[in-house]
Amino acid sequence: MRLITFSLKVFSFAGIIGIFVLLPVNCTGELHIVDFTNLPNNSLDVFTISNIGNGSKRLWIHFSAVYVVTIFICYLLYYEYRYISSKRMAYFYSSKPQPHHFTILVHSIPVSVESSVSESVDRFFSEYHPSTYLSHIVIHRTNRLRSLINDAKQLYGRLTHLKSDDTQQKYHRSCCFGLCGRKVDLTDEYEKQLVDIEKNLRLEQSEVSSSGHKEARAAFVSFKSRLGAAIAFHLPQSSNPIEWVTEEAPEPDDVYWPFFSSSFMHRWISKLTVVVACITLTILFLVPVLIVQGLTNLSQLKTWFPFLESILTIKIVSQVITGYLPSLILQLFLKAVPPIMKFLSSIQGYISHSNIEKSACNKVLWFTIWNVFFATVFSGTAIYVVDIFLEPKQIPGKLAVAVPAQASFFIAYVVTTGWTSVCSELFRIIPFSFSLIKRPFTRSTDHELEVPSLPYHKDIPRILFFALLGITYFFLAPLILPFLLLYLCLGYIIYSNQFINVYAPRYESAGKFWPIVHDSIIFSLVLMHAIAVGIFTLKKLSLASSLICPLPIFTLLFNDYCRKRFLPIFVAYSAESLIKKDRQEENDPEMSEFYNKLVIAYQDPALMPVRFSSSSDGLNSPLISSAQV
Amino acid sequence: MRLITFSLKVFSFAGIIGIFVLLPVNCTGELHIVDFTNLPNNSLDVFTISNIGNGSKRLWIHFSAVYVVTIFICYLLYYEYRYISSKRMAYFYSSKPQPHHFTILVHSIPVSVESSVSESVDRFFSEYHPSTYLSHIVIHRTNRLRSLINDAKQLYGRLTHLKSDDTQQKYHRSCCFGLCGRKVDLTDEYEKQLVDIEKNLRLEQSEVSSSGHKEARAAFVSFKSRLGAAIAFHLPQSSNPIEWVTEEAPEPDDVYWPFFSSSFMHRWISKLTVVVACITLTILFLVPVLIVQGLTNLSQLKTWFPFLESILTIKIVSQVITGYLPSLILQLFLKAVPPIMKFLSSIQGYISHSNIEKSACNKVLWFTIWNVFFATVFSGTAIYVVDIFLEPKQIPGKLAVAVPAQASFFIAYVVTTGWTSVCSELFRIIPFSFSLIKRPFTRSTDHELEVPSLPYHKDIPRILFFALLGITYFFLAPLILPFLLLYLCLGYIIYSNQFINVYAPRYESAGKFWPIVHDSIIFSLVLMHAIAVGIFTLKKLSLASSLICPLPIFTLLFNDYCRKRFLPIFVAYSAESLIKKDRQEENDPEMSEFYNKLVIAYQDPALMPVRFSSSSDGLNSPLISSAQV
Repeated sequence: MRLITFSLKVFSFAGIIGIFVLLPVNCTGELHIVDFTNLPNNSLDVFTISNIGNGSKRLWIHFSAVYVVTIFICYLLYYEYRYISSKRMAYFYSSKPQPHHFTILVHSIPVSVESSVSESVDRFFSEYHPSTYLSHIVIHRTNRLRSLINDAKQLYGRLTHLKSDDTQQKYHRSCCFGLCGRKVDLTDEYEKQLVDIEKNLRLEQSEVSSSGHKEARAAFVSFKSRLGAAIAFHLPQSSNPIEWVTEEAPEPDDVYWPFFSSSFMHRWISKLTVVVACITLTILFLVPVLIVQGLTNLSQLKTWFPFLESILTIKIVSQVITGYLPSLILQLFLKAVPPIMKFLSSIQGYISHSNIEKSACNKVLWFTIWNVFFATVFSGTAIYVVDIFLEPKQIPGKLAVAVPAQASFFIAYVVTTGWTSVCSELFRIIPFSFSLIKRPFTRSTDHELEVPSLPYHKDIPRILFFALLGITYFFLAPLILPFLLLYLCLGYIIYSNQFINVYAPRYESAGKFWPIVHDSIIFSLVLMHAIAVGIFTLKKLSLASSLICPLPIFTLLFNDYCRKRFLPIFVAYSAESLIKKDRQEENDPEMSEFYNKLVIAYQDPALMPVRFSSSSDGLNSPLISSAQV
Repeated sequence: MRLITFSLKVFSFAGIIGIFVLLPVNCTGELHIVDFTNLPNNSLDVFTISNIGNGSKRLWIHFSAVYVVTIFICYLLYYEYRYISSKRMAYFYSSKPQPHHFTILVHSIPVSVESSVSESVDRFFSEYHPSTYLSHIVIHRTNRLRSLINDAKQLYGRLTHLKSDDTQQKYHRSCCFGLCGRKVDLTDEYEKQLVDIEKNLRLEQSEVSSSGHKEARAAFVSFKSRLGAAIAFHLPQSSNPIEWVTEEAPEPDDVYWPFFSSSFMHRWISKLTVVVACITLTILFLVPVLIVQGLTNLSQLKTWFPFLESILTIKIVSQVITGYLPSLILQLFLKAVPPIMKFLSSIQGYISHSNIEKSACNKVLWFTIWNVFFATVFSGTAIYVVDIFLEPKQIPGKLAVAVPAQASFFIAYVVTTGWTSVCSELFRIIPFSFSLIKRPFTRSTDHELEVPSLPYHKDIPRILFFALLGITYFFLAPLILPFLLLYLCLGYIIYSNQFINVYAPRYESAGKFWPIVHDSIIFSLVLMHAIAVGIFTLKKLSLASSLICPLPIFTLLFNDYCRKRFLPIFVAYSAESLIKKDRQEENDPEMSEFYNKLVIAYQDPALMPVRFSSSSDGLNSPLISSAQV
């Protein structure tokens, strides 16, 4: 439920900005229309600030719009932050005992030759947290096990499918593409294979859990109280800061099992590698963007492909090419980015799906801003864009020249990308067509039953990018606002429906995505101020451009205040609230039952006993379920 | 004792660099001497890299020197950091129970109308830390009290002086500059005044401690164990992050009582104000530096002051002016900086002398690097220097042109500033002359008895600046090294003497200054790499300049590793060590006595009972000493 309200916040927030922003825009828009009648022109560019003469008094309306909107957005941001943090606290107070509040993840555990990881964890926490330490589960490297389980699952799916569906061919010939050889009963063969795999699986499971060399040097450590877990998490545990490193545990279902890099050095190096990979991706990605830029410019296209000239002179073709095609092509490339970023985040060393998505969300956001906004605005080579940012003094001037020129592109972008993405979200066209394509190849019925979870790392950056467009363009080209507003209204309706009827949350984000939203809006504001400074300098209104200067400073101060005032709430719960919660449940009879569950909550699913085959022999009895506790 | 070893580290470290650096320098120096014989010239500039031809093979020796020295310095830095952090741990383990390990400072305490600060502190910590909470002392605003005490002290000093010294005039006439009126006994009058002041003082003391409106919203809270204090310090206490903010308490003698800004907003605003003041000071300070730059350039001086031409043509005068005078003038201006920076740090909201000095040390360091190094190197207006840093891409190129040109200035700087400062340190000329001047005006004998403490914020930045000069110039103008080495050897001998015989530490720094040293050396290395890139590009050896590029990246990675590996040790003690220490003393019979002391350790000295006047009436009995606990 918190998810719904949280994402609705984003929309209603952006919506309110839109409506409010429309107001000053209408009065300045009137002036633009006057300009429009004076300069009849067929392009959307007439609505932009470029048409106002140098030093014109009308620029002061734009100036005051910048001030009013900045103050209003800051006011909204403050109240949103306060509201969400109060919601977060309320959610915490009202929640039932949850395993991840009582548990921490410890990694970089030092091991001596004579003792196992499990023993040293036990010794360490019994020694230094005797009153609160409850239990621990050492993490094992179970990549091979997981692939075995997947095989078994697939086989089992195929088998069920075969049994339930009478129309299927149940025999095949044992050799030569089914052309010769004797007939074999497929059902029997699959069952035999399944039994084999399960046997392997159990052998592997017992090997993993009994021998020490598959132990990662990391463990989930559970405590008797929330305060105990918080103390272990907040205090540096060991005198050597790179040993016994603690982290908050995610929800048990949220743990990302496949990648457990447990040593400090390993995590550090993989983090650095990912940072380098991200930068490389961002720079290499500019190549398709530049091709797109070529397409938006009709005359350049004519020089590149002279044989197309006859087609390009047809009005409708040229309109489609300049208006829709570029952003559609860009869109196709951009579709590949969120999965790549999610993969990069997953090898960065995060231990939960939620953290991976949060990190990917950040990556996608900055990637989008860089590659869609800046690369489009400056429409130059990668080196050229990097160059501009190496000369910070000239940024406002260059932005002022380049940003208004791309207004019509971004209006088209809102229409194509925004509207289509929201509509395709309603029908979920891509997952639908994917499942249509996949269906003939996968014979299992599992996939249809899985409820999808919202891909935060894909949707939040997209909405934030539209917010950035709205904030930066509202005073340059107010015409973008009705389109944006329509997009947001559509989004509000459609996402409400999706949350209620389609998606199910995989984990509880507890508002942790809000700081990303806040930072991104602050960035948009400062960028808008930089553009405003550049524009007013360009329009020879130096008084206005110097009067804008305090605005980014105050925005950043406001941001600093918010970071101090609200951000700690999103990082950790306070001693006050933890102790209150602990005391509430002190005499709760349900707690002993909860502790029993807690002890096995962070069991690796790959080490759970598996049972697929119908033959229920002794091998199915859990070999290791009790050995772990 | 730790202070001595710590500061010796700085010297021996810089010394080892010098000696080691000399080695590659000698072999490249030989080449310079070859150049020197070819180009006989009277200036020191012939020893610089500027004399090597473009694309010369000999530049590769410089290239390898850059690599070798960087690796060696990083190696040294790592081992120094490790050694100092191990020393810090050892010091902690061997120390007796100290009040500041058991105490935290809480500020931004919320107060309700019906309860006082003291009551709400008591309620909060009894509620949330029942097992470890011991006591608290609310901080009062005692500025008026402190000035009264100072008055009393001064009067008392004068009185003692008068009584002990028979030669002094003990009477004066009561009016008209001692010309008319009746004779008054000075001793009697002073005693009367003293009794008056003491009466006022006691009244004020009782008023401050009894009425609530002089209470600052801050308190020292003591705990029964180190772990208890650490838990209260590390965990966010309140659900509102800007209330109940905790800080580590300084040693009782180290507390800086005068300035207690207790509310979150007040501290935030004063911090911002100080940042702005620092930046303003740094920019305004460039004015005298520019005058100094004019002096270094003899021809410019002649155009400015044509009447001096006859004097300036005398060889010795021109040598003094170009060699010594500029850096001496600069030095005089720079002398005023550390006290100003210390004052700024003191109003920034730090609560201890040690933190104020640490912050001032940082400020002075960056001030020196900016105003002495960059302003001298670029020898332009303030705007010009800021401009250069707004175009980061061009920094290496501009540095490469400007830095070697100023080699002779910096060699002279080492001789004048370095040598003279170290020698004046030995004789402590400035404090000595100050006390000589002050003696006739102050009649008390107190000042002679006070042992001075080392002004870290003045000495550490100076030594670090010489390290920066050494690191940046060793491959450009190796001639600077013998001078620097002599300075360091002198410094080693003289400071050893000063530590043993002159200074007494006012507080235990426990190695907390080392991270500043580490960061500054890393900065010097990266700056040196930037210069090297510029130089090799300038000398048309593009392969070398691109081969240098990985070096700053690896240096920064190394720094990142060190920050993760060692810095946390300097920030807080680990749970492991705290618990070990607590257990050691669990059954120590001396602990109950220590607790009794702990309860009153953080009593404001201004609220202590005072007794100066000889009349021992009932007023002298402590009115408030017990009321505070």
